[in-house]
Amino acid sequence: MKWETKITNINNGQETIRGKKLSGLIQKNTFTETIFLIWRGRIPRKAETKMLDALLTAAIDHGIGTASAMTARIVASAKNSLHTALTAGILAMGERHGSAIENAAKFFVENKNNRNLVQKIKELKDKKIRVAGFGHAVLERDERSENLIKIAKKLGFYKDTCKTAILIEKELNKLSSKHLPLNIDGAMGAILTDMGFDPDIMKGVFITARVPGLVAHIYEEIKNDTGLRRLNENEIDYIGK
Amino acid sequence: MKWETKITNINNGQETIRGKKLSGLIQKNTFTETIFLIWRGRIPRKAETKMLDALLTAAIDHGIGTASAMTARIVASAKNSLHTALTAGILAMGERHGSAIENAAKFFVENKNNRNLVQKIKELKDKKIRVAGFGHAVLERDERSENLIKIAKKLGFYKDTCKTAILIEKELNKLSSKHLPLNIDGAMGAILTDMGFDPDIMKGVFITARVPGLVAHIYEEIKNDTGLRRLNENEIDYIGK
Amino acid sequence: MKWETKITNINNGQETIRGKKLSGLIQKNTFTETIFLIWRGRIPRKAETKMLDALLTAAIDHGIGTASAMTARIVASAKNSLHTALTAGILAMGERHGSAIENAAKFFVENKNNRNLVQKIKELKDKKIRVAGFGHAVLERDERSENLIKIAKKLGFYKDTCKTAILIEKELNKLSSKHLPLNIDGAMGAILTDMGFDPDIMKGVFITARVPGLVAHIYEEIKNDTGLRRLNENEIDYIGK
Amino acid sequence: MKWETKITNINNGQETIRGKKLSGLIQKNTFTETIFLIWRGRIPRKAETKMLDALLTAAIDHGIGTASAMTARIVASAKNSLHTALTAGILAMGERHGSAIENAAKFFVENKNNRNLVQKIKELKDKKIRVAGFGHAVLERDERSENLIKIAKKLGFYKDTCKTAILIEKELNKLSSKHLPLNIDGAMGAILTDMGFDPDIMKGVFITARVPGLVAHIYEEIKNDTGLRRLNENEIDYIGK
Repeated sequence: MKWETKITNINNGQETIRGKKLSGLIQKNTFTETIFLIWRGRIPRKAETKMLDALLTAAIDHGIGTASAMTARIVASAKNSLHTALTAGILAMGERHGSAIENAAKFFVENKNNRNLVQKIKELKDKKIRVAGFGHAVLERDERSENLIKIAKKLGFYKDTCKTAILIEKELNKLSSKHLPLNIDGAMGAILTDMGFDPDIMKGVFITARVPGLVAHIYEEIKNDTGLRRLNENEIDYIGK
Repeated sequence: MKWETKITNINNGQETIRGKKLSGLIQKNTFTETIFLIWRGRIPRKAETKMLDALLTAAIDHGIGTASAMTARIVASAKNSLHTALTAGILAMGERHGSAIENAAKFFVENKNNRNLVQKIKELKDKKIRVAGFGHAVLERDERSENLIKIAKKLGFYKDTCKTAILIEKELNKLSSKHLPLNIDGAMGAILTDMGFDPDIMKGVFITARVPGLVAHIYEEIKNDTGLRRLNENEIDYIGK
Repeated sequence: MKWETKITNINNGQETIRGKKLSGLIQKNTFTETIFLIWRGRIPRKAETKMLDALLTAAIDHGIGTASAMTARIVASAKNSLHTALTAGILAMGERHGSAIENAAKFFVENKNNRNLVQKIKELKDKKIRVAGFGHAVLERDERSENLIKIAKKLGFYKDTCKTAILIEKELNKLSSKHLPLNIDGAMGAILTDMGFDPDIMKGVFITARVPGLVAHIYEEIKNDTGLRRLNENEIDYIGK
Repeated sequence: MKWETKITNINNGQETIRGKKLSGLIQKNTFTETIFLIWRGRIPRKAETKMLDALLTAAIDHGIGTASAMTARIVASAKNSLHTALTAGILAMGERHGSAIENAAKFFVENKNNRNLVQKIKELKDKKIRVAGFGHAVLERDERSENLIKIAKKLGFYKDTCKTAILIEKELNKLSSKHLPLNIDGAMGAILTDMGFDPDIMKGVFITARVPGLVAHIYEEIKNDTGLRRLNENEIDYIGK
């Protein structure tokens, strides 16, 4: 059985991506436009490019303390090649790290036309089920999501899903003692949905954004080599018998 | 011992990347500009952004048949999550897949001021040592590298290293029966060096470019699920006793 | 916060695993016994060791055509180090490759005391939901599972769960036109449960068994290097526009 | 082109490994014997099995503080599946973690018949080049290597390579102010060589040994879930401008 694809065709040394000649893309299009093309099958409009640029920029890094940066740097510290350390960083992006975008988007889509949304949020709150895309370990506000929503409004992507997200934010905060702002995952999930992205590719948007950030961390670890990272004795507590 | 970094600072919910406020970057800068910033520590000039856009676009995908796309799709076909399949694809980027950029760059840098370069190429040829960055499995010409070199000339990045690369191409082809064009790896290595990039981060440029391509492949594999990929009996030859 | 563990304690160069001195284990115990110890917290009885040896041996390899062997070898063919190629092989062990042990075990445990088991199987069959642990792509019988069940009987591990598995096999085959033998995943899931293993660690049993097999494949690929593996043009079908 | 292998043959549901029927191996052989078979092509002698059991047992775990255990647990803490977390742990096994076995073995083999070995060690010492397989971050003695060497003597594997290793240890410690015992990596490298193993597969021996240890760590992390692991603010030092 042949391997079928609709993405890239290579014929007599001529490469086309989604029907567009690569040589033309190299000359005329930005990386962000080509990313949109390879995922969506068409060159984006100006507003789409701008919005995608903002979303990818917003998620490029979140510091050395994240599970992915930490993991990538430990693996780099064991003297591994850059691509090996990078994969370890990406592996850290499990259910609890980077997946909330997709989960938030799915929740928004399911509840877009839900007349009993207010009631549903109350029920989830009562059952102590966390709604993906809201709240933060440390932040009272999330500047990144506020910025993204502002840009979405300006560019025409503040549509049904974004409105639903903001409505949920309002209702959640009526019920919650702790402030639960729409966080960056929630904002990305809502905006990407209103841009026409399928939730199943959203984790890929996040990873695409974060890869150059992880590359920066690995490069820093290699250049500023402090030896193999490991836990010191005083960071370990043996609780067996 | 604390974990030291110069990349990203998060303070009271305010995130800065290389000293620039993330909120400002989201509003004003493209993804490519922010990539340059996080790697190089400053906002790029227009020409730098254009060149980096061209380089990242050129390497976004090279078809379903590459080791990385194939690997990512096999792992996706086993019903793994997107980030897991992606990492497998990146792991395939060993010495023989994506590393020629860095190796070519190092060779160019070493031989930039080598007066005996012509002699050296002859010696390598005699010893049948392949020079990284030249030649192709199938292509007589490499449109991608020709385009990139053209753009580098226009934007002012056709400097010492690019010239060295083109000189080597000329000398190599005097000696070789098979045509050995400067390939995309060689062109990327030369141009990135003339842009001031350290060879040690160049693999990271390639991976950053290729990640959205791999995401597209994994997404296609998931949506167009043909079951667990494996070798058929007629693709296997048992040669043991 | 300290990292807590009950597994291994290292104190003044003295290492103990689950309370046993490593120096004693090295002298007196087999690898299989030590594996049991580190997972279960005690040295196994003779019969337990024998059974675990049989289970690990049964799953050590299943040929070059499996998704994991194939993936490990592609990544090795790109000139990666052994540990990198190995991880790619393990990444291929998704929901569809090696996970049926755990899924079968969970189904058996849930239905051990189910008086309506026969009815339930009929319903699943009607809904065309596959029961994990039965059937094979190619095999009419599965010698490996037959052997394992025979050994389990001899060693005293053919208990509630194994009986349930065999009962399900009987009922399934009354309903199915195609023969659906208890396969190796089903047998492993049933026996491991009757040995007292938690389904949540069973994927780890499978991987532990398969790792030396994958090491053999990677070593063979490295020594018998045939260059970077990739799809040929005639294995690819471009179906885009 | 077909994929060639000498390892495992599957024919009409009959599986043979290196020419031995799998059904027979399951019934009669231990896991350690089957590991030896799949790597070396023959069933081991009693002494070989015992020695391999000792080596695999010795390396099964070295505490929660190692780079591999730490990495595996961080990735598990992000709610990844067991196989994903395990691969991240293995990725941490770079040049600085688990590779000394192979490097020590290669050094021993190169210098087995070196008449100027004493002189060479002096030169390396003067150039401050570390000899792989000796010394320890914290330990004055390494009980594990002492035990392994003792067992090797008893079982007849204390041959040329082991003798060379012990000779180097003696010479090194004449020159060094700090005590540099033959460590576990050095002992494993020497003994495996005297057992006839190729240095190129030795990293695979180490990983095979360590996988069940990592499985234990991941299982503990999952069951004793303390949330997503990340660095606290007081563990981070931002040193950028």
